[in-house]
Amino acid sequence: MTANREVTVQFQPIGRRVQVDWQATLLDAARQAGIALTSTCGGEGNCGQCRIQVVSGEVTPLTEDERYLLSEEERRQGYRLACCARPLSDVRLHVPADSLDSGQRLQIESVLRPLSPDPLVRAVEVSCTPPTLEDSRSDWTRLRAALAEQLGFREIVPSSALIPQLSQTARQMNWQMNVLLRHAEVIGVIAPQKKPLGLAVDLGTTKIAAALMDLESGQTLCSSGAPNPQISYGEDVVSRLAYVQRARQGSQKMAELVRQTLNQLLLDMVNKVEASPEQVAEACIVGNTAMTHLLMAWPVRQLALAPYVAATTEALEIPAAELNLRMAPGGRVYLPPAIGGYVGSDHVAMVLASELDRNERLTIGIDIGTNTEISLRVPGKETLTAVSCASGPAFEGAHIRDGMRAASGAIEKVLFTDQGWQIGTVDNEPPIGFCGSGILDAVAELYRCGYLMPNGRFDRQKLKQTNDNEPRFVFVPAAQSGSGREIALTQKDINEIQLAKGAIHAGMMILLEANQISPQEVEEVIVAGAFGSYIRIPSALQIGLFPPLPRARYRQVGNAAAIGAQWMLISKQARQRAEEIARRTRYLELTIVPSFNRQFAHAMHFPPQTET
Amino acid sequence: MTANREVTVQFQPIGRRVQVDWQATLLDAARQAGIALTSTCGGEGNCGQCRIQVVSGEVTPLTEDERYLLSEEERRQGYRLACCARPLSDVRLHVPADSLDSGQRLQIESVLRPLSPDPLVRAVEVSCTPPTLEDSRSDWTRLRAALAEQLGFREIVPSSALIPQLSQTARQMNWQMNVLLRHAEVIGVIAPQKKPLGLAVDLGTTKIAAALMDLESGQTLCSSGAPNPQISYGEDVVSRLAYVQRARQGSQKMAELVRQTLNQLLLDMVNKVEASPEQVAEACIVGNTAMTHLLMAWPVRQLALAPYVAATTEALEIPAAELNLRMAPGGRVYLPPAIGGYVGSDHVAMVLASELDRNERLTIGIDIGTNTEISLRVPGKETLTAVSCASGPAFEGAHIRDGMRAASGAIEKVLFTDQGWQIGTVDNEPPIGFCGSGILDAVAELYRCGYLMPNGRFDRQKLKQTNDNEPRFVFVPAAQSGSGREIALTQKDINEIQLAKGAIHAGMMILLEANQISPQEVEEVIVAGAFGSYIRIPSALQIGLFPPLPRARYRQVGNAAAIGAQWMLISKQARQRAEEIARRTRYLELTIVPSFNRQFAHAMHFPPQTET
Repeated sequence: MTANREVTVQFQPIGRRVQVDWQATLLDAARQAGIALTSTCGGEGNCGQCRIQVVSGEVTPLTEDERYLLSEEERRQGYRLACCARPLSDVRLHVPADSLDSGQRLQIESVLRPLSPDPLVRAVEVSCTPPTLEDSRSDWTRLRAALAEQLGFREIVPSSALIPQLSQTARQMNWQMNVLLRHAEVIGVIAPQKKPLGLAVDLGTTKIAAALMDLESGQTLCSSGAPNPQISYGEDVVSRLAYVQRARQGSQKMAELVRQTLNQLLLDMVNKVEASPEQVAEACIVGNTAMTHLLMAWPVRQLALAPYVAATTEALEIPAAELNLRMAPGGRVYLPPAIGGYVGSDHVAMVLASELDRNERLTIGIDIGTNTEISLRVPGKETLTAVSCASGPAFEGAHIRDGMRAASGAIEKVLFTDQGWQIGTVDNEPPIGFCGSGILDAVAELYRCGYLMPNGRFDRQKLKQTNDNEPRFVFVPAAQSGSGREIALTQKDINEIQLAKGAIHAGMMILLEANQISPQEVEEVIVAGAFGSYIRIPSALQIGLFPPLPRARYRQVGNAAAIGAQWMLISKQARQRAEEIARRTRYLELTIVPSFNRQFAHAMHFPPQTET
Repeated sequence: MTANREVTVQFQPIGRRVQVDWQATLLDAARQAGIALTSTCGGEGNCGQCRIQVVSGEVTPLTEDERYLLSEEERRQGYRLACCARPLSDVRLHVPADSLDSGQRLQIESVLRPLSPDPLVRAVEVSCTPPTLEDSRSDWTRLRAALAEQLGFREIVPSSALIPQLSQTARQMNWQMNVLLRHAEVIGVIAPQKKPLGLAVDLGTTKIAAALMDLESGQTLCSSGAPNPQISYGEDVVSRLAYVQRARQGSQKMAELVRQTLNQLLLDMVNKVEASPEQVAEACIVGNTAMTHLLMAWPVRQLALAPYVAATTEALEIPAAELNLRMAPGGRVYLPPAIGGYVGSDHVAMVLASELDRNERLTIGIDIGTNTEISLRVPGKETLTAVSCASGPAFEGAHIRDGMRAASGAIEKVLFTDQGWQIGTVDNEPPIGFCGSGILDAVAELYRCGYLMPNGRFDRQKLKQTNDNEPRFVFVPAAQSGSGREIALTQKDINEIQLAKGAIHAGMMILLEANQISPQEVEEVIVAGAFGSYIRIPSALQIGLFPPLPRARYRQVGNAAAIGAQWMLISKQARQRAEEIARRTRYLELTIVPSFNRQFAHAMHFPPQTET
């Protein structure tokens, strides 16, 4: 082998081939070939998602990570992790569909199983004879009769919202049309050959992620996102709930803000794929319980005060017209079930898409945010248990002196190496602050290097800071910062992180305790959500955010809630399963568990240092 | 007999008795006894509706009116008109059910059979335990579980519009409440012991008549009416349809006008009976097809142009929220089926309430208005036939020089007697113009007395009007008129009436002809609607508005459409029957019948004078 040796890597069934240097991993090769393999860990051998099958040719031997992450069966079939294997000769690879990434880092759709569509709405083509004086049946009667005669449908009814649009549309189309049928209801009429589409939304407190899908094929045609416009009325849920209770018509205003954004996202996507809003027959919107309430303009008083009761947590089908969404006249918005006031439909969607409820291993599913929801699946047990931890916004960069969102210039990676402090920023821009994953790294490294003591106090001696100022560690001096101000973590910042990680850790421990399970018994931890997908698991383990399990038991699945929303959009069965998940999940209120305070206090500390 | 002599009048089967002066009529006696006998003519011996049977005792002899209005058979059985007979001794009377009036002149409910209620909404009382931290189920989940546990209801779903109101209402009521159930759907929550109410509306082009009903007992609690506010945008249907096509947002504006009026009527009635709008669980609104379209903001272009196609003629259940009606959150508005673009749900309601479709006699049902709808029932035949005649607004006082609506001072009665011209006005105010029934009388009397010739021209010699002015007959000289202007009928007015009556007569003839029935075979003519209830049948026969059948074959039933709306409000079965009536009725378009023009031209003439 010489330094210049090149081999050909062929990807099937895509049929693409590429010449690569022998030092490249198969993941690098895929990237060169323009094939987006799923890889939430970014090629670290952690996520086990970039599975490919070696059909012919030679590659480097199995690594230890691969032995852990691939089943015996998979190994026998020649499956490898693309990030761990390098080609030793020309190779031909098979790429399984579920290793393909749609390309977007936050919507790692194919980490999760693709779902065959089973939509609620179908399109049927029908043609009517135009009215005459001899046959002046009403427009709806004419259409209904044609559906009965040509397609054998009986007992068909119209959406009340269809009638105002039918007369003009039918005439524009010369009475040749594609009828959108939902069960026995005609919800819209579109041009022949036009397809029914759907809108899947993950309505986050900070961000709204939307996807436009073909309901029949289940394909994502387009995706888009926008900040949640309610942010101007409160960054977090609590302040928004306070606002709507305080302000006149606050509830309506908040609802309209988000509905307008949804309409805008929908319209942009529809335009991009040259479709019309009338084709959008169905929507599915997941979110935390408060976001759902604000979207629907439901009352929030009882949700904001103990015992924090939702107006409803059960699945609902809402006429799109009630939300002023511009869709097919009788289109519906499916609001999946939630589990409680603090465990929303987004968590149900995450459980659904990650198939936590069916996992054959003892598994924890966790969605980290201002509120962190955690569910426990014990194989063989009917009931899942869910808790919600008030982890606060520290991991989103809030309440941190130099914290910020994951925008350009945010420090997202921190590592102390032989060459000193290595800092990575979003878009490689000059650093201007920390985003969540950067803070986590920074705290982990400060602790690993002895700047922080197990109780979270800075070691002032090591810090070489002797004045009375609040102790802090400066990562970027003012001169090197993009903003002209130093970027540091202060003692108060560390405490915020301790509170956040303590709440999550304690929640997880009580969840296990209540089910009489020791942490070591946990076979898999599914980490979902934006923050969860970006973090480095070793850092999370270093500070004790998670229990000290082998790294490979952690699986980062990206925005599983968004995928769950897409599943429920295109599949009746997925909705049934979601409703079953919600029914089967017992909500455990942490604050009434006697050991919570003790656990929480304990979990604030950093764990003993282990050699890694 | 002395001036003071009193007799006892006993009414059976009601079992009421009353002492009256011997000068009182039996109608006066009934009034004293609180028994509302039907009497559209107000006791003038014209309408023949206040029939009672003298079981024992002596009364004054038959009057000429009675000889005319009662059949020989009836006279033999002792039937009398209560307004014409006075007691000569103690008497016992039998009151047939169809002589009972609900009291309101326009809503002669009990002319028609009372209906036992069979409502779609029922109220069930339920009590929930309030939420705690240990039991923080959502408000809806709590209610649903209580319905299942306490009443055994399964698979219950909420109206989407219920959720925004449930949380507050349930807390206000301390979780003890009356739940409004519609099939398996919770549509509202009201205070315990409060009853579900309903709103029945006859949405006329000119007038809106509304009734508030107790859905469980079927009782009318209150009724009210208002002018149709759309009148400011056009007195008749055609000009309103033109307006909405011309004006920006015209359709929305017209819809909102009438919806606001409905809300106002509803609120007034609800306040009057000390109920709350949330108790109003269901509504039923009947109207002509155009009024329904305008209420619903449906497109009207295709309705206004040949072939005059409705957006839909089929029954619909619309969420009240879509019409901005303030009712129970998930309340529904039932729109009964119509028969065609020119035969609306009000006609179906009329057929329903008058039971035309089940009549054992060969019967015509007629609803006179700007459009006059006529249906034919042939016993033993499955199909009814309906026509619509463009009779124009002359009978509503429009297009008549001195025409007006039936308001104070309107001439509603005209009679030429030995004492000369006798004129009756609404509220006995000084005359200011003619309303429909007055015009009909006036034309009939002018023809009877020879002022008009069979072709409708004035006899100028008899008129003693020799100048070149348009011939006219002055009924009230300027000096005696309430407005200071003379009140007359002009030649043009007569022509308008000829057009109107010609259209109706021709419609009826073609309807019969198409079914190969001669006029003499018609056994009953049901005359419904406001105008139809006020007119004197002899006048209608005199000018040939109706075929020359014996007077007793004509039955004036008051506002049967309004009664039909009430039936459909309180009864599932009535709705099924209405839908069956609409399905079974064949619409016959008059303008495509070859003989229509000939019939119409012929029917413009007045019939040969018969000695009465």
